[in-house]
Amino acid sequence: MRIAVIGAGHVGAGIGMAWLEQGHDVVWGVRDPSKYGDLPAERLLSPREAAATAEALLLAVPWHAAEAALAELGPLDGKLLLDATNPLGMGADGLHLTEGFSTSGGEKVAGWAPGAKVVKTLNQTGAANLGHARRYAEAPLMFLAGDDGQAKQMASALVADLGFNPVDAGPLDRARLLEPLAMLWIEQAMKHGRGPDFALTLVEPAA
Amino acid sequence: MRIAVIGAGHVGAGIGMAWLEQGHDVVWGVRDPSKYGDLPAERLLSPREAAATAEALLLAVPWHAAEAALAELGPLDGKLLLDATNPLGMGADGLHLTEGFSTSGGEKVAGWAPGAKVVKTLNQTGAANLGHARRYAEAPLMFLAGDDGQAKQMASALVADLGFNPVDAGPLDRARLLEPLAMLWIEQAMKHGRGPDFALTLVEPAA
Repeated sequence: MRIAVIGAGHVGAGIGMAWLEQGHDVVWGVRDPSKYGDLPAERLLSPREAAATAEALLLAVPWHAAEAALAELGPLDGKLLLDATNPLGMGADGLHLTEGFSTSGGEKVAGWAPGAKVVKTLNQTGAANLGHARRYAEAPLMFLAGDDGQAKQMASALVADLGFNPVDAGPLDRARLLEPLAMLWIEQAMKHGRGPDFALTLVEPAA
Repeated sequence: MRIAVIGAGHVGAGIGMAWLEQGHDVVWGVRDPSKYGDLPAERLLSPREAAATAEALLLAVPWHAAEAALAELGPLDGKLLLDATNPLGMGADGLHLTEGFSTSGGEKVAGWAPGAKVVKTLNQTGAANLGHARRYAEAPLMFLAGDDGQAKQMASALVADLGFNPVDAGPLDRARLLEPLAMLWIEQAMKHGRGPDFALTLVEPAA
């Protein structure tokens, strides 16, 4: 299965390389290949080419670029679209969520990508973890929210391949809970001096 | 230090008993002591008496009863008020959050308890864990949000006494992130077949 990673910043580069190492056929959709010398040149396509040849896509662009990036891709009917974005804006006090209670970034992305089977996931922790989850002794938790059961199963397998423990959080509107969780992670990392080297795991009581 | 637990349902009974076992002076504020035969009778006071004699309080009543319960307590000036509630309503599809993006249950509680130093915490997991965090091999994560640094330190110590790993999440308005986290836990427990015997921990990469 070919995966097209849309965006090749820290998140898209890290996740794409980790999938490549796990044996997936990964391409990146980027506007200017010359900017990404660290990535295998033969795998850098235009966003539209990358999307056309892939069965699954990962949206890994900054929030303000998400709508335009999706519009550029051409038809996505029936394709799995993993939405790793977070609806972040910058205010005087640092980053904050721009969507929340009555909608979510995930639902907006679904509106901008008609026909795609959107799964919100890989948004709840930072780039330092996303491509490097295997550095933890216990698999970090990664929730998934989506309306299509089969797409969510496929997404879970891709999330597990990165070294995460994939956990179903319900339909896509549960992105309203997963984006606040991302914000908690971001604030711990950036505002509370914890840095990016931590993750959450799901544990059960000692027997 | 005396702690008054307002409410003696599963949450209030469990947390209060756990604090008692850790050597704290705990009383419960309840309207009808005859309903709580499992709790030490000499420690069941009226809500107003309990509040008057305590330096710290735990609000552990259902959301719909929170405002009236606080109104009954008399002045709380300068006291620590741990808010363990979640702004939950019941809809056709089960429990949901009634507050969120632009305010939170924690901020509403602060409005209903003028003078109290409100710390949102002990809301992010269920009663099965709240009084029984020590059953986990690694201390489950418990965030705290509050505007008064000293009150939050005191609250952190009380949270740690229950066997949790207390983590500062910032000012009280971060309850807008901690209540969605509670909802995630609740939905995993109740809607996704996981039951109440799981928790989240904060981990760092293997050295």
